[in-house]
Amino acid sequence: MSMPPTPSMPASPPARSGRPDPYDRTRSSRGSESAFGPRLHSALQARGPLCVGIDPHPGLLGQWGLSDDADGLDRFATAVVTALAGEVAVLKPQSAFFERHGAAGIGVLERTIAGARAAGALVILDAKRGDLGSTVQGYADAYLRPGAPLAADALTVNAYLGFGSLRPFLDAAAGSGAGVFVVTLTSNPEGAEVQRAVTSSGRTVAGTLLAAVADHNASDPATGRRALGSVGAVVGATLDHAGEDLDCGGPLLVPGLGTQGGTAADVRRLFPGLLDRVVPSVSRSVLAAGPSAAALRAAALHQRDELLSALAAG
Amino acid sequence: MSMPPTPSMPASPPARSGRPDPYDRTRSSRGSESAFGPRLHSALQARGPLCVGIDPHPGLLGQWGLSDDADGLDRFATAVVTALAGEVAVLKPQSAFFERHGAAGIGVLERTIAGARAAGALVILDAKRGDLGSTVQGYADAYLRPGAPLAADALTVNAYLGFGSLRPFLDAAAGSGAGVFVVTLTSNPEGAEVQRAVTSSGRTVAGTLLAAVADHNASDPATGRRALGSVGAVVGATLDHAGEDLDCGGPLLVPGLGTQGGTAADVRRLFPGLLDRVVPSVSRSVLAAGPSAAALRAAALHQRDELLSALAAG
Repeated sequence: MSMPPTPSMPASPPARSGRPDPYDRTRSSRGSESAFGPRLHSALQARGPLCVGIDPHPGLLGQWGLSDDADGLDRFATAVVTALAGEVAVLKPQSAFFERHGAAGIGVLERTIAGARAAGALVILDAKRGDLGSTVQGYADAYLRPGAPLAADALTVNAYLGFGSLRPFLDAAAGSGAGVFVVTLTSNPEGAEVQRAVTSSGRTVAGTLLAAVADHNASDPATGRRALGSVGAVVGATLDHAGEDLDCGGPLLVPGLGTQGGTAADVRRLFPGLLDRVVPSVSRSVLAAGPSAAALRAAALHQRDELLSALAAG
Repeated sequence: MSMPPTPSMPASPPARSGRPDPYDRTRSSRGSESAFGPRLHSALQARGPLCVGIDPHPGLLGQWGLSDDADGLDRFATAVVTALAGEVAVLKPQSAFFERHGAAGIGVLERTIAGARAAGALVILDAKRGDLGSTVQGYADAYLRPGAPLAADALTVNAYLGFGSLRPFLDAAAGSGAGVFVVTLTSNPEGAEVQRAVTSSGRTVAGTLLAAVADHNASDPATGRRALGSVGAVVGATLDHAGEDLDCGGPLLVPGLGTQGGTAADVRRLFPGLLDRVVPSVSRSVLAAGPSAAALRAAALHQRDELLSALAAG
């Protein structure tokens, strides 16, 4: 795989809209610069509203002319980090595609996370972990503890065992300046079976989780009322409708843009009044441009600028 | 850590009750010896109804006098496999406690799974994975594909994204003779928020998932109507009541026994008529007996015999 020389890229993205910045940390009496919410907000302001997924599935490795093994995975991830970690606000490795290759794949994941963070990107590890008690503490140790081999800036988590089961994630995040994204509403039709089921409180499961996230953020002394919370939600971009109050006080990670069908218009439609806390995530429509670093950057910056226009106009 | 010599152990566990064996593979016209359900049934018959969790959390490593790093993890897991993989039907490594140690920990997990299977135990990897589409396929490749570095006999999975999202797991399992355990009802009080929510069909989320598992097993040509299905459910042992039809046609993995509060009496109470498909899982009450191999074996066989009596009497 040949990598063309790095082209000259703009040092900073275009400024976002001129509206007052509701999450300006200088306005928060209790905001902590090291908390995830404010860090994410700053990154989105500085680099524009884009998360690029690192999803090295076998088809994509093949498209890039790489072998479906840990070596191919390493080349793929290194190319993405080299091309994008200095440019985009957030990179989101998908753990499954590293786990496919066993310990060698996890070694690549360690280097991918560390390399991306060292180059200035925030890393949300998409692993959707969830369990109970000491096991959740184990996952929190693995991904949210500073100095851990796989320490990321944030982790996606699964609340099938109840929002309360996530407590060790929330505590670890609060203690280390990390973030947590709770999967709430996904775009696949079969997701509604669980996510739209009605709890004893009369709300849906997704609505209950979103409200719990909001309560958590409202009570988090590290962010306070005016700063972006450090616990967010994952909400699919291709939902017909949200049907829930998405104002959870934290960021909204929105996968499914690009090849998966979601558009900037969907983001505007689904998140009115919340566009400044949306983290739109694209994967294949950027990754398919590789392995050329210039082409990866061009694809990412094109997506970013399109989202920047669409979200700023909201 | 010193390991005492292996004591002489009974070559085979006591026979279970004299009732006709409803899952005898010779009675199934379409049963496949390589399908997980029949393999699990044979293992439970031959070795008794016990799964031991391999949960090397930091507190337990400390109790064993081991360091909280990949070397301590390796010593712990090796000791458990050496002591128990030739004796108990099922071993269940908890992935979180290996992930804590990054790639080195996953290397230990590879050796743990392979070593346990080579010694004759079935391995259910407790990882509770769940996602969508190609990502679920990635997890299926990682854990259910023969020859993968982390290939196990079965995997626990999470259906927050709907039973339909699990399709790649089910297909992979059917193709490779592996098993899948869908988390349905957990013992923690906060689990009810999601698991007891009511879907549009009027059933609970857990009931909907259990019915979907039953439908899947009923239509699986590899197991057929008379063999134990290869897709099971995870149901906590310390539930006040199940409140659902647990007859899903597959095995019921029941964690929470022993130190976590569940007893053989709970198993009898919660699973009437289904005791021959229950896989009771203990962790700390066995693991706390280590690092002595003899003590680990004695603790495991004590648990097994207690369960054998309780379940056979049902």
